[in-house]
Amino acid sequence: MKIAVTGKGGVGKTTLAGVLAKLYAEEGYRVLAVDADPDANLAIALEFPRDKLDKIMPLSEMRELIAERTGAQPGLMGQMFTLNPKVEDVPERFCVEHGGVRLLVMGGIKKGGSGCACPEHAFLRAIMRHLLLENKDVLIVDMEAGIEHLGRATADAVDVFIVVVEPGLKSINTYHSIRKLAADIGINQVLVVGNKVKDREDEKFIKSNVEVEKLLGIINYDPRIAEAERDGLSPLFAGEKIRQAVAAIKNKIDKHFG
Amino acid sequence: MKIAVTGKGGVGKTTLAGVLAKLYAEEGYRVLAVDADPDANLAIALEFPRDKLDKIMPLSEMRELIAERTGAQPGLMGQMFTLNPKVEDVPERFCVEHGGVRLLVMGGIKKGGSGCACPEHAFLRAIMRHLLLENKDVLIVDMEAGIEHLGRATADAVDVFIVVVEPGLKSINTYHSIRKLAADIGINQVLVVGNKVKDREDEKFIKSNVEVEKLLGIINYDPRIAEAERDGLSPLFAGEKIRQAVAAIKNKIDKHFG
Repeated sequence: MKIAVTGKGGVGKTTLAGVLAKLYAEEGYRVLAVDADPDANLAIALEFPRDKLDKIMPLSEMRELIAERTGAQPGLMGQMFTLNPKVEDVPERFCVEHGGVRLLVMGGIKKGGSGCACPEHAFLRAIMRHLLLENKDVLIVDMEAGIEHLGRATADAVDVFIVVVEPGLKSINTYHSIRKLAADIGINQVLVVGNKVKDREDEKFIKSNVEVEKLLGIINYDPRIAEAERDGLSPLFAGEKIRQAVAAIKNKIDKHFG
Repeated sequence: MKIAVTGKGGVGKTTLAGVLAKLYAEEGYRVLAVDADPDANLAIALEFPRDKLDKIMPLSEMRELIAERTGAQPGLMGQMFTLNPKVEDVPERFCVEHGGVRLLVMGGIKKGGSGCACPEHAFLRAIMRHLLLENKDVLIVDMEAGIEHLGRATADAVDVFIVVVEPGLKSINTYHSIRKLAADIGINQVLVVGNKVKDREDEKFIKSNVEVEKLLGIINYDPRIAEAERDGLSPLFAGEKIRQAVAAIKNKIDKHFG
Protein backbone atom coordinates (compact mmCIF):
# COMPACT_ATOMS: atom_id res chain seq x y z
CA MET A 1 0.00 0.00 0.00
CA LYS A 2 1.20 3.50 -0.83
CA ILE A 3 -0.07 6.27 1.44
CA ALA A 4 0.52 10.02 1.14
CA VAL A 5 -0.20 12.07 4.27
CA THR A 6 -1.05 15.61 3.31
CA GLY A 7 -2.84 18.79 4.45
CA LYS A 8 -2.32 22.40 5.46
CA GLY A 9 0.93 23.35 7.22
CA GLY A 10 0.98 22.74 10.97
CA VAL A 11 -1.98 20.33 11.19
CA GLY A 12 0.09 17.35 12.33
CA LYS A 13 0.97 15.41 9.17
CA THR A 14 4.32 14.31 10.56
CA THR A 15 2.79 13.05 13.81
CA LEU A 16 0.31 10.87 11.92
CA ALA A 17 2.84 9.67 9.31
CA GLY A 18 5.44 8.84 11.96
CA VAL A 19 3.18 6.95 14.36
CA LEU A 20 1.46 5.10 11.49
CA ALA A 21 4.83 3.97 10.11
CA LYS A 22 5.90 2.72 13.56
CA LEU A 23 2.67 0.74 13.99
CA TYR A 24 2.98 -0.96 10.58
CA ALA A 25 6.60 -1.85 11.32
CA GLU A 26 5.66 -3.32 14.71
CA GLU A 27 3.21 -5.58 12.90
CA GLY A 28 5.95 -6.94 10.68
CA TYR A 29 5.35 -4.87 7.56
CA ARG A 30 8.35 -3.66 5.57
CA VAL A 31 7.89 0.10 5.81
CA LEU A 32 9.49 2.75 3.64
CA ALA A 33 8.84 6.24 5.04
CA VAL A 34 9.58 9.27 2.88
CA ASP A 35 9.97 12.71 4.45
CA ALA A 36 8.96 15.02 1.60
CA ASP A 37 8.24 18.06 3.78
CA PRO A 38 11.28 20.33 4.11
CA ASP A 39 9.66 21.95 7.16
CA ALA A 40 9.09 18.68 9.03
CA ASN A 41 11.27 16.13 10.73
CA LEU A 42 9.90 12.67 10.22
CA ALA A 43 13.11 11.09 11.57
CA ILE A 44 12.40 12.56 15.00
CA ALA A 45 8.78 11.38 14.95
CA LEU A 46 10.18 7.91 14.11
CA GLU A 47 12.44 8.07 17.18
CA PHE A 48 15.69 7.84 15.20
CA PRO A 49 18.60 8.15 17.63
CA ARG A 50 21.28 10.81 17.15
CA ASP A 51 23.86 8.51 15.47
CA LYS A 52 21.33 7.47 12.83
CA LEU A 53 20.10 11.05 12.33
CA ASP A 54 23.68 11.96 11.44
CA LYS A 55 23.76 9.26 8.76
CA ILE A 56 20.76 10.60 6.84
CA MET A 57 21.71 12.13 3.49
CA PRO A 58 18.80 14.17 2.14
CA LEU A 59 18.14 13.95 -1.59
CA SER A 60 18.47 17.73 -1.77
CA GLU A 61 22.16 17.35 -0.92
CA MET A 62 22.55 15.09 -3.92
CA ARG A 63 21.89 17.78 -6.49
CA GLU A 64 24.70 16.36 -8.62
CA LEU A 65 23.05 12.95 -8.67
CA ILE A 66 19.69 14.54 -9.44
CA ALA A 67 21.27 16.73 -12.12
CA GLU A 68 22.95 13.69 -13.67
CA ARG A 69 19.69 11.71 -13.70
CA THR A 70 17.25 14.49 -14.69
CA GLY A 71 19.55 16.59 -16.85
CA ALA A 72 18.59 19.66 -14.82
CA GLN A 73 21.30 22.18 -13.97
CA PRO A 74 21.30 22.91 -10.24
CA GLY A 75 20.73 26.60 -9.55
CA LEU A 76 18.34 27.39 -12.37
CA MET A 77 14.64 27.93 -12.79
CA GLY A 78 12.69 27.77 -16.01
CA GLN A 79 14.79 25.13 -17.76
CA MET A 80 14.21 21.80 -19.44
CA PHE A 81 14.76 18.49 -17.65
CA THR A 82 13.53 14.93 -17.92
CA LEU A 83 10.49 13.92 -15.89
CA ASN A 84 11.45 10.23 -15.84
CA PRO A 85 14.87 9.93 -14.24
CA LYS A 86 16.36 6.52 -13.39
CA VAL A 87 15.88 5.92 -9.65
CA GLU A 88 15.70 2.16 -9.04
CA ASP A 89 18.85 2.14 -6.92
CA VAL A 90 17.94 5.14 -4.77
CA PRO A 91 15.87 3.59 -1.92
CA GLU A 92 18.50 0.90 -1.31
CA ARG A 93 21.44 3.28 -1.49
CA PHE A 94 20.11 6.20 0.51
CA CYS A 95 17.74 4.84 3.18
CA VAL A 96 18.61 4.73 6.85
CA GLU A 97 16.72 2.16 8.93
CA HIS A 98 15.46 2.31 12.51
CA GLY A 99 12.92 0.16 14.35
CA GLY A 100 11.93 -1.60 11.13
CA VAL A 101 11.25 1.62 9.23
CA ARG A 102 13.49 2.60 6.31
CA LEU A 103 13.58 6.38 5.89
CA LEU A 104 14.30 8.50 2.82
CA VAL A 105 14.53 12.28 3.29
CA MET A 106 13.90 14.78 0.48
CA GLY A 107 15.42 17.71 2.38
CA GLY A 108 15.00 21.39 1.81
CA ILE A 109 16.46 24.21 -0.19
CA LYS A 110 20.20 24.39 0.51
CA LYS A 111 20.91 27.88 -0.83
CA GLY A 112 18.73 30.94 -1.36
CA GLY A 113 18.27 31.67 -5.06
CA SER A 114 19.43 28.17 -6.02
CA GLY A 115 16.26 27.49 -8.02
CA CYS A 116 12.97 25.68 -7.61
CA ALA A 117 12.51 22.13 -6.33
CA CYS A 118 11.05 20.86 -9.61
CA PRO A 119 13.88 18.44 -10.42
CA GLU A 120 13.69 17.01 -6.87
CA HIS A 121 9.93 16.55 -7.23
CA ALA A 122 10.37 14.78 -10.56
CA PHE A 123 12.90 12.56 -8.81
CA LEU A 124 10.61 11.77 -5.85
CA ARG A 125 7.73 11.11 -8.22
CA ALA A 126 9.84 8.60 -10.11
CA ILE A 127 10.82 6.89 -6.84
CA MET A 128 7.17 6.55 -5.81
CA ARG A 129 6.15 5.25 -9.25
CA HIS A 130 8.91 2.70 -9.63
CA LEU A 131 8.63 1.14 -6.20
CA LEU A 132 7.20 -2.32 -6.61
CA LEU A 133 5.55 -3.15 -3.34
CA GLU A 134 4.78 -6.65 -2.16
CA ASN A 135 1.86 -7.65 0.01
CA LYS A 136 3.39 -6.73 3.35
CA ASP A 137 5.07 -3.55 2.11
CA VAL A 138 3.89 -0.10 3.04
CA LEU A 139 5.07 3.24 1.67
CA ILE A 140 4.17 6.27 3.79
CA VAL A 141 5.01 9.73 2.45
CA ASP A 142 4.87 12.80 4.68
CA MET A 143 4.05 15.29 1.93
CA GLU A 144 5.00 18.94 1.78
CA ALA A 145 2.37 21.30 3.23
CA GLY A 146 -0.06 22.85 0.84
CA ILE A 147 -1.00 21.91 -2.68
CA GLU A 148 1.80 22.74 -5.11
CA HIS A 149 2.84 19.06 -5.08
CA LEU A 150 -0.56 18.31 -6.64
CA GLY A 151 0.18 20.64 -9.55
CA ARG A 152 3.42 18.74 -9.93
CA ALA A 153 1.61 15.39 -9.55
CA THR A 154 4.46 14.29 -7.27
CA ALA A 155 2.34 11.63 -5.55
CA ASP A 156 0.28 10.35 -8.48
CA ALA A 157 1.33 6.74 -7.84
CA VAL A 158 -0.11 6.41 -4.33
CA ASP A 159 -3.23 4.41 -3.42
CA VAL A 160 -4.63 6.88 -0.94
CA PHE A 161 -4.23 10.44 0.26
CA ILE A 162 -4.85 10.91 3.97
CA VAL A 163 -5.58 14.57 4.62
CA VAL A 164 -5.03 15.78 8.18
CA VAL A 165 -7.37 18.59 9.25
CA GLU A 166 -7.69 20.57 12.47
CA PRO A 167 -10.67 22.50 13.84
CA GLY A 168 -10.17 25.45 11.48
CA LEU A 169 -11.84 26.37 8.22
CA LYS A 170 -8.54 26.88 6.39
CA SER A 171 -7.49 23.27 6.91
CA ILE A 172 -10.94 22.12 5.76
CA ASN A 173 -10.63 24.27 2.63
CA THR A 174 -7.24 22.70 1.99
CA TYR A 175 -8.89 19.26 2.27
CA HIS A 176 -11.48 20.18 -0.34
CA SER A 177 -8.79 21.57 -2.68
CA ILE A 178 -6.72 18.41 -2.24
CA ARG A 179 -9.69 16.15 -2.97
CA LYS A 180 -10.47 18.00 -6.20
CA LEU A 181 -6.83 18.18 -7.33
CA ALA A 182 -6.22 14.53 -6.41
CA ALA A 183 -9.10 13.48 -8.66
CA ASP A 184 -7.41 15.42 -11.50
CA ILE A 185 -4.35 13.17 -11.17
CA GLY A 186 -6.43 10.00 -10.88
CA ILE A 187 -6.49 9.53 -7.11
CA ASN A 188 -10.02 9.05 -5.84
CA GLN A 189 -9.26 7.59 -2.42
CA VAL A 190 -8.97 10.69 -0.24
CA LEU A 191 -9.61 10.06 3.46
CA VAL A 192 -9.42 12.40 6.45
CA VAL A 193 -8.05 12.44 9.99
CA GLY A 194 -9.17 15.19 12.39
CA ASN A 195 -6.39 16.34 14.73
CA LYS A 196 -6.03 18.70 17.73
CA VAL A 197 -9.65 18.28 18.76
CA LYS A 198 -10.11 20.10 22.08
CA ASP A 199 -13.82 19.62 22.86
CA ARG A 200 -17.19 18.50 21.52
CA GLU A 201 -17.56 21.80 19.68
CA ASP A 202 -14.33 21.08 17.73
CA GLU A 203 -15.43 17.51 17.02
CA LYS A 204 -18.80 18.70 15.77
CA PHE A 205 -17.04 21.24 13.56
CA ILE A 206 -14.94 18.55 11.88
CA LYS A 207 -17.84 16.11 11.54
CA SER A 208 -20.02 18.76 9.94
CA ASN A 209 -17.29 19.60 7.41
CA VAL A 210 -16.09 16.11 6.44
CA GLU A 211 -18.26 13.36 4.92
CA VAL A 212 -18.74 10.62 7.56
CA GLU A 213 -17.51 7.83 5.26
CA LYS A 214 -14.28 9.76 4.59
CA LEU A 215 -13.39 10.34 8.25
CA LEU A 216 -10.86 7.75 9.48
CA GLY A 217 -10.80 9.08 13.02
CA ILE A 218 -10.15 11.89 15.44
CA ILE A 219 -6.99 12.60 17.44
CA ASN A 220 -7.64 14.67 20.56
CA TYR A 221 -5.52 17.69 21.46
CA ASP A 222 -2.86 16.72 23.98
CA PRO A 223 -0.71 19.45 25.52
CA ARG A 224 2.03 16.84 26.01
CA ILE A 225 2.33 16.46 22.22
CA ALA A 226 2.73 20.24 21.90
CA GLU A 227 5.43 20.08 24.59
CA ALA A 228 7.20 17.14 22.94
CA GLU A 229 7.12 19.10 19.66
CA ARG A 230 8.45 22.20 21.38
CA ASP A 231 11.38 20.22 22.73
CA GLY A 232 12.17 18.39 19.47
CA LEU A 233 10.94 14.99 20.67
CA SER A 234 8.75 12.34 19.02
CA PRO A 235 4.98 12.68 19.66
CA LEU A 236 5.24 9.11 21.00
CA PHE A 237 7.07 10.68 23.94
CA ALA A 238 3.70 12.12 25.01
CA GLY A 239 2.37 8.73 26.11
CA GLU A 240 0.02 5.98 25.00
CA LYS A 241 -2.98 8.05 23.90
CA ILE A 242 -1.55 9.12 20.57
CA ARG A 243 -0.50 5.54 19.81
CA GLN A 244 -4.03 4.29 20.61
CA ALA A 245 -5.69 6.99 18.51
CA VAL A 246 -3.47 6.21 15.50
CA ALA A 247 -3.94 2.44 16.01
CA ALA A 248 -7.70 2.93 15.64
CA ILE A 249 -7.09 4.94 12.47
CA LYS A 250 -4.78 2.22 11.14
CA ASN A 251 -7.50 -0.42 11.73
CA LYS A 252 -9.87 1.61 9.61
CA ILE A 253 -7.28 1.95 6.84
CA ASP A 254 -6.69 -1.80 6.89
CA LYS A 255 -10.43 -2.49 6.68
CA HIS A 256 -10.74 -0.01 3.84
CA PHE A 257 -7.97 -1.64 1.79
CA GLY A 258 -8.17 -5.20 3.12
CA MET B 1 8.89 49.62 3.03
CA LYS B 2 8.57 46.09 1.66
CA ILE B 3 7.88 43.37 4.23
CA ALA B 4 7.62 39.61 3.66
CA VAL B 5 5.96 37.62 6.47
CA THR B 6 7.23 34.08 6.44
CA GLY B 7 7.68 30.92 8.55
CA LYS B 8 6.56 27.33 8.99
CA GLY B 9 3.00 26.41 8.04
CA GLY B 10 0.37 27.08 10.69
CA VAL B 11 2.38 29.50 12.84
CA GLY B 12 0.12 32.50 12.18
CA LYS B 13 1.69 34.37 9.25
CA THR B 14 -1.68 35.48 7.92
CA THR B 15 -2.82 36.80 11.30
CA LEU B 16 0.30 38.97 11.60
CA ALA B 17 0.30 40.11 7.96
CA GLY B 18 -3.41 40.96 8.05
CA VAL B 19 -3.43 42.91 11.31
CA LEU B 20 -0.19 44.72 10.40
CA ALA B 21 -1.66 45.79 7.04
CA LYS B 22 -4.81 47.11 8.77
CA LEU B 23 -2.75 49.11 11.28
CA TYR B 24 -0.61 50.74 8.58
CA ALA B 25 -3.73 51.62 6.58
CA GLU B 26 -5.39 53.17 9.66
CA GLU B 27 -2.33 55.41 10.02
CA GLY B 28 -2.77 56.70 6.48
CA TYR B 29 -0.19 54.58 4.69
CA ARG B 30 -0.97 53.31 1.19
CA VAL B 31 -0.83 49.55 1.75
CA LEU B 32 -0.53 46.84 -0.88
CA ALA B 33 -1.05 43.41 0.66
CA VAL B 34 -0.11 40.32 -1.35
CA ASP B 35 -1.50 36.90 -0.43
CA ALA B 36 1.17 34.55 -1.75
CA ASP B 37 0.15 31.57 0.38
CA PRO B 38 -2.29 29.29 -1.45
CA ASP B 39 -3.24 27.74 1.91
CA ALA B 40 -4.11 31.04 3.59
CA ASN B 41 -6.83 33.60 3.27
CA LEU B 42 -5.47 37.07 3.79
CA ALA B 43 -8.70 38.65 2.51
CA ILE B 44 -10.58 37.25 5.50
CA ALA B 45 -7.91 38.45 7.95
CA LEU B 46 -8.30 41.89 6.30
CA GLU B 47 -12.07 41.77 6.96
CA PHE B 48 -13.06 41.93 3.28
CA PRO B 49 -16.84 41.65 3.01
CA ARG B 50 -18.47 38.96 0.86
CA ASP B 51 -19.14 41.20 -2.18
CA LYS B 52 -15.48 42.21 -2.36
CA LEU B 53 -14.27 38.63 -1.79
CA ASP B 54 -16.23 37.69 -4.89
CA LYS B 55 -14.43 40.35 -6.94
CA ILE B 56 -10.94 38.99 -6.21
CA MET B 57 -9.32 37.41 -9.26
CA PRO B 58 -6.30 35.35 -8.18
CA LEU B 59 -3.24 35.52 -10.42
CA SER B 60 -3.37 31.73 -10.71
CA GLU B 61 -6.61 32.10 -12.68
CA MET B 62 -4.79 34.28 -15.15
CA ARG B 63 -2.56 31.56 -16.52
CA GLU B 64 -3.08 32.92 -20.01
CA LEU B 65 -1.85 36.35 -18.97
CA ILE B 66 1.09 34.77 -17.16
CA ALA B 67 1.80 32.52 -20.14
CA GLU B 68 1.69 35.52 -22.48
CA ARG B 69 4.07 37.52 -20.26
CA THR B 70 6.49 34.75 -19.24
CA GLY B 71 6.34 32.61 -22.35
CA ALA B 72 5.60 29.57 -20.15
CA GLN B 73 3.04 27.04 -21.38
CA PRO B 74 0.45 26.39 -18.67
CA GLY B 75 0.36 22.72 -17.71
CA LEU B 76 4.02 21.88 -18.06
CA MET B 77 6.97 21.35 -15.79
CA GLY B 78 10.62 21.47 -16.77
CA GLN B 79 10.32 24.05 -19.52
CA MET B 80 11.95 27.36 -20.39
CA PHE B 81 10.34 30.70 -19.57
CA THR B 82 11.45 34.26 -18.96
CA LEU B 83 12.23 35.33 -15.42
CA ASN B 84 11.52 39.02 -16.12
CA PRO B 85 7.95 39.34 -17.35
CA LYS B 86 6.32 42.75 -17.82
CA VAL B 87 4.06 43.41 -14.80
CA GLU B 88 3.81 47.20 -14.29
CA ASP B 89 0.07 47.23 -14.95
CA VAL B 90 -0.81 44.27 -12.74
CA PRO B 91 -1.27 45.86 -9.27
CA GLU B 92 -3.58 48.54 -10.69
CA ARG B 93 -5.58 46.14 -12.83
CA PHE B 94 -6.04 43.27 -10.41
CA CYS B 95 -6.17 44.69 -6.87
CA VAL B 96 -9.35 44.85 -4.83
CA GLU B 97 -9.40 47.49 -2.08
CA HIS B 98 -10.97 47.42 1.37
CA GLY B 99 -10.40 49.63 4.43
CA GLY B 100 -7.44 51.34 2.76
CA VAL B 101 -5.66 48.06 1.93
CA ARG B 102 -5.26 47.00 -1.71
CA LEU B 103 -5.06 43.24 -2.01
CA LEU B 104 -3.47 41.06 -4.68
CA VAL B 105 -3.99 37.29 -4.43
CA MET B 106 -1.61 34.75 -5.97
CA GLY B 107 -4.02 31.83 -5.63
CA GLY B 108 -3.35 28.16 -5.68
CA ILE B 109 -3.03 25.29 -8.07
CA LYS B 110 -6.23 25.10 -10.14
CA LYS B 111 -5.84 21.60 -11.53
CA GLY B 112 -3.92 18.54 -10.35
CA GLY B 113 -1.04 17.72 -12.67
CA SER B 114 -1.18 21.19 -14.22
CA GLY B 115 2.48 21.85 -13.49
CA CYS B 116 4.60 23.70 -10.95
CA ALA B 117 4.06 27.28 -9.78
CA CYS B 118 7.40 28.49 -11.16
CA PRO B 119 5.93 30.88 -13.76
CA GLU B 120 3.62 32.38 -11.10
CA HIS B 121 6.58 32.85 -8.76
CA ALA B 122 8.58 34.56 -11.51
CA PHE B 123 5.56 36.80 -12.04
CA LEU B 124 5.17 37.65 -8.33
CA ARG B 125 8.89 38.30 -8.04
CA ALA B 126 8.70 40.77 -10.92
CA ILE B 127 5.75 42.52 -9.27
CA MET B 128 7.67 42.90 -6.01
CA ARG B 129 10.81 44.14 -7.79
CA HIS B 130 9.09 46.66 -10.02
CA LEU B 131 6.93 48.27 -7.38
CA LEU B 132 8.27 51.76 -6.76
CA LEU B 133 7.22 52.65 -3.26
CA GLU B 134 6.97 56.19 -1.94
CA ASN B 135 7.58 57.26 1.62
CA LYS B 136 4.17 56.39 2.97
CA ASP B 137 3.78 53.17 0.97
CA VAL B 138 3.96 49.73 2.52
CA LEU B 139 4.02 46.36 0.78
CA ILE B 140 3.19 43.37 3.00
CA VAL B 141 3.49 39.89 1.51
CA ASP B 142 2.01 36.86 3.27
CA MET B 143 4.49 34.32 1.91
CA GLU B 144 3.88 30.67 1.21
CA ALA B 145 4.76 28.35 4.11
CA GLY B 146 8.16 26.78 4.10
CA ILE B 147 11.29 27.65 2.21
CA GLU B 148 10.95 26.77 -1.47
CA HIS B 149 10.20 30.44 -2.25
CA LEU B 150 13.73 31.17 -1.03
CA GLY B 151 15.19 28.79 -3.59
CA ARG B 152 13.14 30.67 -6.16
CA ALA B 153 14.20 34.05 -4.68
CA THR B 154 10.58 35.16 -5.04
CA ALA B 155 10.93 37.86 -2.37
CA ASP B 156 14.46 39.10 -3.07
CA ALA B 157 13.30 42.71 -3.41
CA VAL B 158 11.90 43.12 0.11
CA ASP B 159 13.54 45.15 2.89
CA VAL B 160 12.82 42.75 5.70
CA PHE B 161 11.66 39.21 6.35
CA ILE B 162 9.52 38.82 9.45
CA VAL B 163 9.57 35.17 10.49
CA VAL B 164 6.70 34.02 12.70
CA VAL B 165 7.63 31.25 15.15
CA GLU B 166 5.62 29.34 17.75
CA PRO B 167 6.80 27.44 20.84
CA GLY B 168 8.06 24.46 18.81
CA LEU B 169 11.51 23.47 17.65
CA LYS B 170 10.40 22.91 14.04
CA SER B 171 9.31 26.53 13.63
CA ILE B 172 12.60 27.68 15.17
CA ASN B 173 14.52 25.46 12.75
CA THR B 174 12.53 27.00 9.90
CA TYR B 175 13.55 30.46 11.19
CA HIS B 176 17.22 29.50 11.12
CA SER B 177 16.88 28.06 7.60
CA ILE B 178 15.13 31.20 6.42
CA ARG B 179 17.79 33.47 7.91
CA LYS B 180 20.57 31.58 6.16
CA LEU B 181 18.75 31.35 2.82
CA ALA B 182 17.67 35.01 3.00
CA ALA B 183 21.32 36.04 3.35
CA ASP B 184 22.06 34.04 0.18
CA ILE B 185 19.64 36.28 -1.76
CA GLY B 186 20.95 39.46 -0.16
CA ILE B 187 18.41 40.00 2.59
CA ASN B 188 20.05 40.53 5.93
CA GLN B 189 17.16 42.04 7.85
CA VAL B 190 15.41 38.98 9.26
CA LEU B 191 13.32 39.68 12.35
CA VAL B 192 11.09 37.40 14.43
CA VAL B 193 7.65 37.42 16.03
CA GLY B 194 6.78 34.73 18.58
CA ASN B 195 3.15 33.60 18.37
CA LYS B 196 0.79 31.30 20.34
CA VAL B 197 2.71 31.76 23.59
CA LYS B 198 0.72 30.02 26.34
CA ASP B 199 2.86 30.55 29.44
CA ARG B 200 6.23 31.66 30.79
CA GLU B 201 7.74 28.33 29.78
CA ASP B 202 6.77 28.98 26.13
CA GLU B 203 8.07 32.53 26.31
CA LYS B 204 11.38 31.34 27.77
CA PHE B 205 11.62 28.75 25.00
CA ILE B 206 11.28 31.40 22.29
CA LYS B 207 13.62 33.85 24.00
CA SER B 208 16.27 31.18 24.42
CA ASN B 209 16.05 30.29 20.71
CA VAL B 210 15.91 33.75 19.10
CA GLU B 211 18.52 36.48 19.45
CA VAL B 212 17.07 39.25 21.65
CA GLU B 213 17.79 42.00 19.08
CA LYS B 214 15.90 40.04 16.40
CA LEU B 215 12.72 39.53 18.43
CA LEU B 216 10.08 42.11 17.51
CA GLY B 217 7.57 40.85 20.04
CA ILE B 218 5.40 38.09 21.40
CA ILE B 219 1.73 37.40 20.67
CA ASN B 220 0.03 35.38 23.40
CA TYR B 221 -2.14 32.37 22.65
CA ASP B 222 -5.79 33.36 22.63
CA PRO B 223 -8.45 30.65 22.30
CA ARG B 224 -10.76 33.24 20.70
CA ILE B 225 -8.34 33.55 17.77
CA ALA B 226 -8.45 29.77 17.32
CA GLU B 227 -12.25 29.96 17.39
CA ALA B 228 -12.34 32.84 14.91
CA GLU B 229 -10.04 30.81 12.65
CA ARG B 230 -12.23 27.73 13.01
CA ASP B 231 -15.24 29.75 11.93
CA GLY B 232 -13.54 31.50 9.00
CA LEU B 233 -13.46 34.93 10.65
CA SER B 234 -10.72 37.57 10.92
CA PRO B 235 -8.45 37.27 13.98
CA LEU B 236 -9.52 40.87 14.71
CA PHE B 237 -12.88 39.34 15.61
CA ALA B 238 -11.20 37.94 18.73
CA GLY B 239 -10.99 41.35 20.40
CA GLU B 240 -8.50 44.11 21.14
CA LYS B 241 -5.59 42.05 22.48
CA ILE B 242 -4.32 40.89 19.10
CA ARG B 243 -4.53 44.46 17.76
CA GLN B 244 -2.53 45.73 20.76
CA ALA B 245 0.11 43.02 20.44
CA VAL B 246 0.60 43.72 16.72
CA ALA B 247 0.60 47.51 17.34
CA ALA B 248 3.56 47.03 19.70
CA ILE B 249 5.31 44.96 17.01
CA LYS B 250 4.59 47.63 14.40
CA ASN B 251 6.15 50.30 16.65
CA LYS B 252 9.32 48.25 16.82
CA ILE B 253 9.37 47.83 13.03
CA ASP B 254 8.94 51.59 12.58
CA LYS B 255 11.78 52.30 15.01
CA HIS B 256 13.96 49.77 13.22
CA PHE B 257 13.39 51.35 9.80
CA GLY B 258 12.65 54.96 10.81
